[in-house]
Amino acid sequence: MPKEEILDPQGQAVVRALGRIGVEGVSDVRQGKRFELEVDDSVTAEELEKVAATLLTNTVIEDYEIVGAEVKK
Amino acid sequence: MPKEEILDPQGQAVVRALGRIGVEGVSDVRQGKRFELEVDDSVTAEELEKVAATLLTNTVIEDYEIVGAEVKK
Repeated sequence: MPKEEILDPQGQAVVRALGRIGVEGVSDVRQGKRFELEVDDSVTAEELEKVAATLLTNTVIEDYEIVGAEVKK
Repeated sequence: MPKEEILDPQGQAVVRALGRIGVEGVSDVRQGKRFELEVDDSVTAEELEKVAATLLTNTVIEDYEIVGAEVKK
């Protein structure tokens, strides 16, 4: 997601568009990216951290969060 | 996220780039969008559904999931 101090014109465009579909009560929208990775057991948490910080995120303007999901057999 | 049957060239580019930073064991990457909305109590689940389905998602090629987060006072 864009860092809090970074302007997010795409999110602001969504806020303005909400009126058109008659939805009120949304004070802010931020748009970011989401990546879903399929990894095997050999991939460590440190490696995932490296992938997120060097390849998937522009850490100057974006923050990231790594979330684990289900184990596929 | 892009639907499963939709090609995701951005995700595939990430898969190819993983070798460059020495990470193996990632078999697939899919890139999608994430929106964070700040809403007040007046916004119903049906309205959020409408926002997601009509404004935030191109339902021809993308799926969406709505996840609740913390309550700010």
